[in-house]
Amino acid sequence: MEVPQVPFDDRGLAYGDGLFETVLLRDGRPLLWDYHLARLKRGCRLLDIPCPAQGALEADIRVDGEGLEVLKLIVTRGSGGRGYACPEKVVPRLLSSRTPFHAQEQHWRNGVRVRLCELRLGHQPRLAGIKHLNRLENVLARNEWQTPDIVEGLVADHNGRVIEATSMNLFWCHKGQYFTPYLDQCGVAGTLREALLAAGEVTQAHLDIEELSDVEALWIGNSVQGMWPVAELLDTQGAPWQRWSLGTASRRLQAMANRLLGYPQFS
Amino acid sequence: MEVPQVPFDDRGLAYGDGLFETVLLRDGRPLLWDYHLARLKRGCRLLDIPCPAQGALEADIRVDGEGLEVLKLIVTRGSGGRGYACPEKVVPRLLSSRTPFHAQEQHWRNGVRVRLCELRLGHQPRLAGIKHLNRLENVLARNEWQTPDIVEGLVADHNGRVIEATSMNLFWCHKGQYFTPYLDQCGVAGTLREALLAAGEVTQAHLDIEELSDVEALWIGNSVQGMWPVAELLDTQGAPWQRWSLGTASRRLQAMANRLLGYPQFS
Repeated sequence: MEVPQVPFDDRGLAYGDGLFETVLLRDGRPLLWDYHLARLKRGCRLLDIPCPAQGALEADIRVDGEGLEVLKLIVTRGSGGRGYACPEKVVPRLLSSRTPFHAQEQHWRNGVRVRLCELRLGHQPRLAGIKHLNRLENVLARNEWQTPDIVEGLVADHNGRVIEATSMNLFWCHKGQYFTPYLDQCGVAGTLREALLAAGEVTQAHLDIEELSDVEALWIGNSVQGMWPVAELLDTQGAPWQRWSLGTASRRLQAMANRLLGYPQFS
Repeated sequence: MEVPQVPFDDRGLAYGDGLFETVLLRDGRPLLWDYHLARLKRGCRLLDIPCPAQGALEADIRVDGEGLEVLKLIVTRGSGGRGYACPEKVVPRLLSSRTPFHAQEQHWRNGVRVRLCELRLGHQPRLAGIKHLNRLENVLARNEWQTPDIVEGLVADHNGRVIEATSMNLFWCHKGQYFTPYLDQCGVAGTLREALLAAGEVTQAHLDIEELSDVEALWIGNSVQGMWPVAELLDTQGAPWQRWSLGTASRRLQAMANRLLGYPQFS
């Protein structure tokens, strides 16, 4: 497949002025597609970018596919070279690419090791939740460690509230109930999280860094990788801090999430 | 000149993972070039992107030029398609373009009308000051108004401190002294501002929104447009709020700034 190109004056490049979606395809069929569409539309509305028609967004899906792939869609405000002011007539640019995907079965089975990042997310309610192209905070946080045995990093905000992992949402169990952080000030509202909220399986709540010691189980998940139980949490220095055994509680939310994505079950 | 293109997997497009500079060229000669270079290098250091060699950055300058042009340089982390983690070997991508420029003499002469934006800048000390490609806050703020008689918008942070204009730095006069906001939490440290700080002409200070009523003169300026006195400030609803007459005080800082850029003087 030819690699799409964007010109120098595309506002997605110039200012990160756009949005993206990363969608799991199973045999050509997009998972949680309604949630991806809804988030993209919400992002376009908040940024005042005309959302491409659904047919255009689905153009790369309808071709026959086999096995697991990831579809990445980028929608930018298009070309416009006069500074931050938007062009009078915005012609959004839609780009997409499909790549084969291999799920990490060992992470579902054994859980993962994560660390707490030093970077704190800034608050910006006007951009919180949507999957816009301004992702330097995520890049900085993800690059705090290089060792491959640490698969993700948890990120808190300036108030010390844990918000998400660098590319996944966060979930925890407390007294048998399932929770996920509020994302009204920062963070990306993942589609797997949205689906679990809509199903009434999880509830939004605050989680301070210190409260990580009290949770009965912790997961990170997204619509591509599914739900990984956290087996071990390191502190910002990379030193061991918390451990969770993968008991019944840690499997239940995973089961719900993986069912939504057609992934296997573990016990 | 051919428009440069970037591939879909460029991290500047994917995540705003890069930096830019906008440089005034006069007859092919870059103004405040050392300050632009210094800011770009600082940005590369903070984002851990290898900075292109000075020769490469200057490649588009050395050709003969006539009159005023704007050189725009973009440096991205280059291609890399594995999520937020940086590629093991980063090959930065350098893009540049030159466009003719016409300075707005009437704004130097008559001053400008600006408004206060509703958008509040979030705090992110890890990104403050550098001219990175994550500029959605600027885009949102700039697009709060469309009327061409309002030339800029002032932007405050979540604490109500005025930080900058959407594409210019802010300066004010109080008791005969010149000041510019601290930019350690948010905002872009413009090169004109840096040059005035280095020359000891201005000092960093805090300015709350309410204190805008007390300043003796207000300017917005950058290294391309020079220094514009603010003649009138509208509130976030677009209603008249403050006015300044363009007296001796309002000309002095303009004179210093415009001299640095080879722009004319006004009295």
